[in-house]
Amino acid sequence: MRVTFEEVGNVLAAKLQSRGCSIVQSIQVGREMARNSLEGTYTHGINRFARLIRNIDEGIVIPDVLPSLVSSFGAIERYDGNLGLGVSNALYAMNRAIELAKMHGMGLVALKNTNHWMRAATYGYQACEAGFAGMCFTNTMPNMPTWGAIDSRIGNNPFVMAFPRSNGTHLIVDCAMSQFSYGALELARLEGRTMPIDAGFDESGNLTKDPDKVIKSQRIIPTGYWKGAAISFMLDIFASCLSVGNCVAEIGRLPGDEHGISQVFIAINYGVIAPEQDVELIIENALRDLKNSKPVDKNQPIIFTGEKTDTIRRENEKLGIPVDERVWAEICAL
Amino acid sequence: MRVTFEEVGNVLAAKLQSRGCSIVQSIQVGREMARNSLEGTYTHGINRFARLIRNIDEGIVIPDVLPSLVSSFGAIERYDGNLGLGVSNALYAMNRAIELAKMHGMGLVALKNTNHWMRAATYGYQACEAGFAGMCFTNTMPNMPTWGAIDSRIGNNPFVMAFPRSNGTHLIVDCAMSQFSYGALELARLEGRTMPIDAGFDESGNLTKDPDKVIKSQRIIPTGYWKGAAISFMLDIFASCLSVGNCVAEIGRLPGDEHGISQVFIAINYGVIAPEQDVELIIENALRDLKNSKPVDKNQPIIFTGEKTDTIRRENEKLGIPVDERVWAEICAL
Repeated sequence: MRVTFEEVGNVLAAKLQSRGCSIVQSIQVGREMARNSLEGTYTHGINRFARLIRNIDEGIVIPDVLPSLVSSFGAIERYDGNLGLGVSNALYAMNRAIELAKMHGMGLVALKNTNHWMRAATYGYQACEAGFAGMCFTNTMPNMPTWGAIDSRIGNNPFVMAFPRSNGTHLIVDCAMSQFSYGALELARLEGRTMPIDAGFDESGNLTKDPDKVIKSQRIIPTGYWKGAAISFMLDIFASCLSVGNCVAEIGRLPGDEHGISQVFIAINYGVIAPEQDVELIIENALRDLKNSKPVDKNQPIIFTGEKTDTIRRENEKLGIPVDERVWAEICAL
Repeated sequence: MRVTFEEVGNVLAAKLQSRGCSIVQSIQVGREMARNSLEGTYTHGINRFARLIRNIDEGIVIPDVLPSLVSSFGAIERYDGNLGLGVSNALYAMNRAIELAKMHGMGLVALKNTNHWMRAATYGYQACEAGFAGMCFTNTMPNMPTWGAIDSRIGNNPFVMAFPRSNGTHLIVDCAMSQFSYGALELARLEGRTMPIDAGFDESGNLTKDPDKVIKSQRIIPTGYWKGAAISFMLDIFASCLSVGNCVAEIGRLPGDEHGISQVFIAINYGVIAPEQDVELIIENALRDLKNSKPVDKNQPIIFTGEKTDTIRRENEKLGIPVDERVWAEICAL
């Protein structure tokens, strides 16, 4: 079935309000999670909503709180997220980084005791919509073995870099430090597909493309093998040390579903040092060259990430957001 | 043969001085390139020195210039590297980012028209030695196909994150956005080894571990396949747009060896918002947990990058830096 963006947003907001969220917070978080589905990030939109409500009901996500300032110096600030909703906390933090960048050229906000921010790209786009370059990253519960290890002790720690374009098709990379998520492996298993490249180790320690074997061994691989393992660890160190919050190891020790995570938000007010016209020309030049690449498959032209999102959004705006009927029924009954 | 760190530094400095570099610049760059070899980054120390001198002789690297300020606002500044030596330019830029961070909590310096900075980690360690967290990245000439493409249009764009420890064993990740460098592939081919994982495509477009086939096809793969390709492109956009300098495509159009590249340096004065004692405890906790991973091979305990460097440095300090006799003779004759 398909449901309009407006209806999805309204239903999610109403459910959040029923759990004690303020009207403003409910509308904000409901709309962002609806937008995630609208733009094709189905895993962190409607499909994740029931789990968020469960987390509120369990008391590990606290409704109707906002981050509180712990300490600040010039362009950098540290906040306690008070275990509030990850989406509203993260929007608050990136907004504050943007305000700092207006004053100081750039701003950094470190946030502890927060919760899952759903779609990482949201906060990159937020910076872009304000006309700023953005970077942000989060730690997670331990969900991946480091390189050379069997047991999961590092996080997949999504990382975002975003740069605005005046035409609204902002440039963005939003990538977790695991090569494939368990969600992607499970979908492939369901559809009887093998992965296009090695997706992890089997239980004997051999690299394999078979999603079933990787799900059984729980040994997914970091993005770029040892490289992503090292980047993941450093993202965790930056997020937990700058916020004085939980590191991945500590998050793994907390009882229940993932909560109490650490994040960093950076906004760069590049327009005050770089003429907008020059910047636009550089981006056009770089993009044109990339797209002039000789493709491996003539029917698969080279695209950059933002473009795919635009196509999906346009389709879902026209036809409504595709929703699994059982998932929608579960949400309506919450 | 082995040569002491002091002698290597002195010889390199003398050669730089003979090419018109100031005494200060010669000592600085000579010492840093000697230190790269001392700490095991042989590719960007002694082994790269003759090429640097050649670049000076060709006129694409200009001796005895420093970066000049183009524009600034609060915590962010933009410099022209004036095609000077990459190492002294980068040291200058990170030092300036540190000074900005002292005033504003963090600092960002974007640098255009600079040259190869040799070992990326140098500038991460530089931030750490001042007590700051550091990030930096550079673009390069086009040396890798983007995902789904055959011809090389993106750079391997090394990326660094560094966080200091009071014991001096700073945490660092220094990684290029190519899974393997051509240097690593050539070494493996020479030694008759295949790579431990897929290293690129052969000429028929199949993934292969055979270094010879990848060198022939010139189709190395990005770190994490499509993920590293996207990060590489965004690093290029950030570096070239913030500095208003050359993007990878433009660098590829310049005649001669790689020159005129763009870089970004960020320093974070986290000590002003986060108690040092808390930060140390978080790092100890995170490192201990990582090292408690169950290793795949009992004889290969889990280490973090900085540790390997420490071991190599201690050995080379004791025995001298291992130097290829022909390489050393070539340098002495420059």
